[in-house]
Amino acid sequence: MTGEGFLAIDWGTSNRRIYLFDGVGTLRATERDDRGLSVVSREAFPLEVAEIRARLGDLPMLCAGMVGSASGWVDASYCPCPAALEDLAEAISWVEPGRTAIVPGVSFEKDSRSDLMRGEEVQLLGAAAEGLVSRDALLCQPGTHCKWACITNGRIDSFRTTMTGELFGYLKHHGVLAEYMTGEVASGEAFHRGLAQSSSRSLLGDLFCARVAVLQGKRDISDTAAYVSGLLIGNDVLEQEIGAGNLVHVLADPLLGDLYGAAIGAAGGEAVLLDSEDAFVAGITRLWALVQ
Amino acid sequence: MTGEGFLAIDWGTSNRRIYLFDGVGTLRATERDDRGLSVVSREAFPLEVAEIRARLGDLPMLCAGMVGSASGWVDASYCPCPAALEDLAEAISWVEPGRTAIVPGVSFEKDSRSDLMRGEEVQLLGAAAEGLVSRDALLCQPGTHCKWACITNGRIDSFRTTMTGELFGYLKHHGVLAEYMTGEVASGEAFHRGLAQSSSRSLLGDLFCARVAVLQGKRDISDTAAYVSGLLIGNDVLEQEIGAGNLVHVLADPLLGDLYGAAIGAAGGEAVLLDSEDAFVAGITRLWALVQ
Repeated sequence: MTGEGFLAIDWGTSNRRIYLFDGVGTLRATERDDRGLSVVSREAFPLEVAEIRARLGDLPMLCAGMVGSASGWVDASYCPCPAALEDLAEAISWVEPGRTAIVPGVSFEKDSRSDLMRGEEVQLLGAAAEGLVSRDALLCQPGTHCKWACITNGRIDSFRTTMTGELFGYLKHHGVLAEYMTGEVASGEAFHRGLAQSSSRSLLGDLFCARVAVLQGKRDISDTAAYVSGLLIGNDVLEQEIGAGNLVHVLADPLLGDLYGAAIGAAGGEAVLLDSEDAFVAGITRLWALVQ
Repeated sequence: MTGEGFLAIDWGTSNRRIYLFDGVGTLRATERDDRGLSVVSREAFPLEVAEIRARLGDLPMLCAGMVGSASGWVDASYCPCPAALEDLAEAISWVEPGRTAIVPGVSFEKDSRSDLMRGEEVQLLGAAAEGLVSRDALLCQPGTHCKWACITNGRIDSFRTTMTGELFGYLKHHGVLAEYMTGEVASGEAFHRGLAQSSSRSLLGDLFCARVAVLQGKRDISDTAAYVSGLLIGNDVLEQEIGAGNLVHVLADPLLGDLYGAAIGAAGGEAVLLDSEDAFVAGITRLWALVQ
């Protein structure tokens, strides 16, 4: 990779992260802000990128994430599984040829099940290409919608999305449990009690009992959020049917990585935490090289 | 039962139902309105009941439901399981002796699991006392918080509460699925597809895929609400581990009764729909006789 360098944006619904690379692909600067799709209308994207270029340099730009969805700037389609970096590069959407492009998402379909991702594919394939995981690996990307992806021979072979984070957010901020879920979430005793309870596979009942336990003086109110987090993440991990000794690479911030690591361990697996920014950088620089 | 008659109120968070009984315990009139706890402050209860008496007769009154909770009029405590009508009568809370009383709720505790009900106990024990169910029976009361109760020898022996209705309400009105869940819910093909999928016990993943199926053109958007209802109710029923041929009495309105009946049938059980108002009347008239 030579030349003037480029800008990359991981542009999601709530936040975006901007990366400035120099002409040899070295990361020179990053910025993170809350100018996600929820506050940027379709017409406003050209102005947003003009402002970024004015600030960081008048460089070509490669975007990934929900910016390429039907509710984003340009609908950048999906590559079907199995999907490699080369497939993404081939299906890239140029907003302005040679200057501004959007990475496609990835779709999965088998029998009656369909699933979609947009943004996570750059991290997943970047981690595989950089050797952060082996060529065949199971990766987990916790978040509002958690992704569980099987990488086979360096390609995204299949994946599942779970609503774990979205449901946690609902329970924490709305509904009958919200007033109890004001405490910290950490991988402590309450979280592990939630994990242990999740093995009964009775989430709909266990959530209600989380409230009763506080009303009956059986659990401190400050432990409720951690307990509910343990219930949800425990159920999430159990849905994946991870076998004893299975290795799972978790792409997450330290807190979520810690929580999912504990849950994967409780289910008999082994978790390795990866830096999701490193994985994104590995993926986006390779994609940029492929589309030059 | 003789005398002047009495008023009964099933007073919940969102709604209340008022019953007027004559001196021989015959139901003379009912009213239903939305003057639930969410719009009646603690101080306003005396005025509310004064208005009801002005309208229906200056009679003694027996209330049940969330009106007896910590956030209601008077905290009417809980009877522990096993609980019979006689136990409820003995623990009744008189707001004004001989004139206005509130029925206690029921609590369950075994090992580390605690659960609570308030209001449902009148229907459950009424159904058993009236012979609407046998002395040993499994009853289901769908709703925001669905109750599954084991009646043994005419007593509430144990029960479980599930957050099924609350989660459906969240998904329908908030979050990523809401814009897809505008269609009718009925026990048709889409609902049964949701039931069938629930057997995989992967609710957190199946909920996300419900959105993808529409985006990918695999399911009509108008079927999404029914499909998600099938997923949730199917998981609710499976959490109860109902065995083949098990009889479940469902106390619900016709729609929810139909949905739960289909789900119980799909899980190998047999559902019988009961009229929840008949059950409430059977329970509250017996309670009133016991506290005279």
